[in-house]
Amino acid sequence: MVKPCKQSPAGMQCKEEDLKSFRQWGSKIPGHPENFETPGVEVTTGPLGQGIANAVGLALAERHLAARFNKPDAEIVDHYTYCILGDGCNMEGISNEACSLAGHWGLGKLIAFYDDNHISIDGDTEIAFTEDVSARFESLGWHVIWVKNGNTGYDEIRAAIKEAKSVKDKPTMIKVTTTIGFGSPNKANSYSVHGSALGAKEVEATRNNLGWPYEPFHVPEDVKSHWSRHTSEGAALETEWNAKFAEYEKKYPEEAADLKSIITGELPAGWEKALPTYTPESPADATRNLSQQNLNALAKVLPGFLGGSADLASSNMTLLKMFGDFQKNTPEERNLRFGVREHGMGAICNGIALHSLGLIPYCATFFVFTDYMRGAMRISALSEAGVIYVMTHDSIGLGEDGPTHQPIEHLASFRAMPNILMFRPADGNETAGAYKVAVLKRKTPSILALSRQKLPQLDGTSIEGAAKGGYIVSDDSSGNKPDVILIGTGSELEIAVNAADELRKGGKTVRVVSFVCWELYDEQSAEYKESVLPASVTARVSIEAGSTFGWQKFVGDKGKAIGIDGFGASAPAGRIYKEFGITAEAVIVAAKEVS
Amino acid sequence: MVKPCKQSPAGMQCKEEDLKSFRQWGSKIPGHPENFETPGVEVTTGPLGQGIANAVGLALAERHLAARFNKPDAEIVDHYTYCILGDGCNMEGISNEACSLAGHWGLGKLIAFYDDNHISIDGDTEIAFTEDVSARFESLGWHVIWVKNGNTGYDEIRAAIKEAKSVKDKPTMIKVTTTIGFGSPNKANSYSVHGSALGAKEVEATRNNLGWPYEPFHVPEDVKSHWSRHTSEGAALETEWNAKFAEYEKKYPEEAADLKSIITGELPAGWEKALPTYTPESPADATRNLSQQNLNALAKVLPGFLGGSADLASSNMTLLKMFGDFQKNTPEERNLRFGVREHGMGAICNGIALHSLGLIPYCATFFVFTDYMRGAMRISALSEAGVIYVMTHDSIGLGEDGPTHQPIEHLASFRAMPNILMFRPADGNETAGAYKVAVLKRKTPSILALSRQKLPQLDGTSIEGAAKGGYIVSDDSSGNKPDVILIGTGSELEIAVNAADELRKGGKTVRVVSFVCWELYDEQSAEYKESVLPASVTARVSIEAGSTFGWQKFVGDKGKAIGIDGFGASAPAGRIYKEFGITAEAVIVAAKEVS
Repeated sequence: MVKPCKQSPAGMQCKEEDLKSFRQWGSKIPGHPENFETPGVEVTTGPLGQGIANAVGLALAERHLAARFNKPDAEIVDHYTYCILGDGCNMEGISNEACSLAGHWGLGKLIAFYDDNHISIDGDTEIAFTEDVSARFESLGWHVIWVKNGNTGYDEIRAAIKEAKSVKDKPTMIKVTTTIGFGSPNKANSYSVHGSALGAKEVEATRNNLGWPYEPFHVPEDVKSHWSRHTSEGAALETEWNAKFAEYEKKYPEEAADLKSIITGELPAGWEKALPTYTPESPADATRNLSQQNLNALAKVLPGFLGGSADLASSNMTLLKMFGDFQKNTPEERNLRFGVREHGMGAICNGIALHSLGLIPYCATFFVFTDYMRGAMRISALSEAGVIYVMTHDSIGLGEDGPTHQPIEHLASFRAMPNILMFRPADGNETAGAYKVAVLKRKTPSILALSRQKLPQLDGTSIEGAAKGGYIVSDDSSGNKPDVILIGTGSELEIAVNAADELRKGGKTVRVVSFVCWELYDEQSAEYKESVLPASVTARVSIEAGSTFGWQKFVGDKGKAIGIDGFGASAPAGRIYKEFGITAEAVIVAAKEVS
Repeated sequence: MVKPCKQSPAGMQCKEEDLKSFRQWGSKIPGHPENFETPGVEVTTGPLGQGIANAVGLALAERHLAARFNKPDAEIVDHYTYCILGDGCNMEGISNEACSLAGHWGLGKLIAFYDDNHISIDGDTEIAFTEDVSARFESLGWHVIWVKNGNTGYDEIRAAIKEAKSVKDKPTMIKVTTTIGFGSPNKANSYSVHGSALGAKEVEATRNNLGWPYEPFHVPEDVKSHWSRHTSEGAALETEWNAKFAEYEKKYPEEAADLKSIITGELPAGWEKALPTYTPESPADATRNLSQQNLNALAKVLPGFLGGSADLASSNMTLLKMFGDFQKNTPEERNLRFGVREHGMGAICNGIALHSLGLIPYCATFFVFTDYMRGAMRISALSEAGVIYVMTHDSIGLGEDGPTHQPIEHLASFRAMPNILMFRPADGNETAGAYKVAVLKRKTPSILALSRQKLPQLDGTSIEGAAKGGYIVSDDSSGNKPDVILIGTGSELEIAVNAADELRKGGKTVRVVSFVCWELYDEQSAEYKESVLPASVTARVSIEAGSTFGWQKFVGDKGKAIGIDGFGASAPAGRIYKEFGITAEAVIVAAKEVS
């Protein structure tokens, strides 16, 4: 397959002006490769190690789609994934994680060039990096080739690529030994050419040394014509592929429809009807289990839905029951087994999501271990990769595993991150609502924080409410003037509901508000917000089993935020909630104080 | 060396009651190993891969101290570091990072047992982990031994340890092939014994199978006496070491004083006088450069001060000029070269800090890359390891590297984390103040967010003010009633000061407050807080080049928070500040609106 481009061929061209405005405001050529800025850039990198992990995701996507959609008479998906990585990328743990998986999965169409130039920002890599990289890649199940003259050994490089292509059951790492700043007479082979400009004098010397007599930014005609043949060649390949696909569509209409949906990101009509709904009579359940019902429902209707967990599938409840495992010999399956490799998992999912708009990857671990993968999650947000992060065991409510496993500050930390939706659903309807938005938002990643413990299906929750981010679950006042507003999220919405019952018995009018996703609430109109949190009602109490950091925004100067601002403890969940004062009693006391 | 213990031998004993209350509230035996809960536990682990990285730090500490303090006639520092790690740890990128460094540094007294049981939570490791671990460790420069019968092969294990000790220039990984749940007739070799209790029936069957006829929690006399000999043996070793040290102290009083300070954590008298001070006439400078002045001043007076950067020493400005690099052949030196391995770096520093109370490690990268090492930073906070995180390039002010490198949400994300001090100093005095607190707080890690760009030395800043977290920098009002309060941090304090000048010219009385560390401000008395932010003055504007998330706490319902809630951009710093509205003009407009 020649992968259809998002941009038209015309839109893909960067002008000479863009090159001249490198790293300047508004330029298409920013400081690091960014898919949302520069046409033709597939993924956003810069933070080291992300690129190679993205490449594993891109290669996985190709292998999966090829296995599902190719027919003996129609090789409709067929491309290589190339990646260049440096010494720094190879030092980062994320690259070892992703490359171990690439070897395990036998991604034969992944070809990585390791720019072995022996220089990183602090100087010669001898000071910190003396491992045998090639041997390590071999231990990870890669085919390894060494090109010793990477500066001018074009034929060797071509031969290496040919060899890499001939090895079909292993990814290939081509170690290309190069000189950084090749051609610069005084700065080559030193860290000073890594991030700094050469300077006018050294540019002059380099031009002389390389025999390059042209003006700055001038592209000679022969170079231009040599390169621009790619435009026509590419166009021809695209035409050819389109014809092939038209044929395919005739023979295999069902598969073609699925593949089209995956390529374009256009979701099948009525997909959202598959989402489960719940009533207060539905059995109490952990939101991680309710999440699994949603995942399985979505996988049935969304052809590009796939994912898995970092070795916690049975705890995160992420297995798709109708599918097997994506493995070397079963690449058509949709359960991904990432092993204990959170950071690699996140970046691989970014690669999958950015391969095709309709590939919707989800990945899972305990919420606290977002700390291990935050680098990749931020790239999801920045590069508009709509990955769904299924994060269970979302509070002290996980109990006995103790404070190393109990998230405290994590909700706040993601609410502060741009372009990522931080959901904390309270029950089945809100979990379905979160998934509905998460699937629709293909350019914004979502995190679902889900409970380990059972929670009741509450009265008043809804998919529609959840989609607004914050909404009224119950209210016994009139005229938009309750005596007090209780705000809860996730497992603490139940506590707010219970406290409201008690307060109402005591004669107060109480509104209970669910704040399942702050970012979505912030997008609502001023009128809507006034209908939920009227400015005149300053008696507000929030309850959430996490840091109170940030809650002042909604409870205001006169309100109270109940939460946990220290670390948790190891004990059964009920005991911990009591000891930390995350209780209906605490809400009632606070409500009386503020109202 | 037998490392002196923090706890007395009596304090180190856990009672049988503690064993019975495993994972219960108040127990000394929590769900995962925690140094702050259980006597005798050196480091806090649980999150996979942290332990082996801590072990690298512990072994580094031993090697460094041995090189500095041992004399031909007095081997005063001399111990091995043992670590057990599992399949999961070996999948995590952090372990590859740390083990690559251990191999590079040739930490011959580090011995790691790899519990090769082929089972992780999702089942057989075949589904996700088929790399050749032994070959990988060899590629990292480790000596590798395989014990094939880890269940009962005690002699083989003893022989492996002996061999490991004989290899002095490489760390050793002993791969010990075992059966998980060995002895359980029905659950051994399955994931169901990983985290779940066996259940009464299977416990019974296991006891029968292993021939263990005793009551639950009963320790037979012969086992007890076999083990308790360690008490007297340990006491004898400690007495011996104390005598040896007394001898050492007589011969080498200077070295002994330094080592004592390192072991006890008691800082040399008057150390804080070494901190540099600045006046408004001192030259403008980037806080990263001012930080380097502090680091170098501190290294002169603090015997246990050492650290380095993840391949950004020349950008983070972290080199100690009077010392060379800690390397295989120069382990007495104090500049650590971590390579591009942020997560491993943080966990190694935790190991160093927890080795001896007076070892004060610092480590550095760009602030945005805390995302790569947050797992280790949280463990610093939780396990009371006073690591100093030197985080430069702390905002959009870094300019051309663009949004992948520009922190936005990071200040908020750490302000929400318990037991970690998030400093953002504005100039030289505040940088010195931050370091003063960071050094004193041996059980709380500190993060210093430092600018890439030059900043002026401001009038009114001070070490003492910074130590209070928030304080008045200037005020032309009387009676604690300014017309408006402007709050700034770091590089934006200058903007607040400039805006105040303009507003004062326009006739307003203005107070400028620096909020260099929220956590320290929160610790101040109510009276002090009222003197800085009087409740009656609701006209408040904050400015910070980062997320506004959380600022409502200080600006209140009627105030305004100026910041950036989206991602940054690639351009020179000045242009970006202007485009995002982080300017004195914006502060003036907001101040007029709120006052």
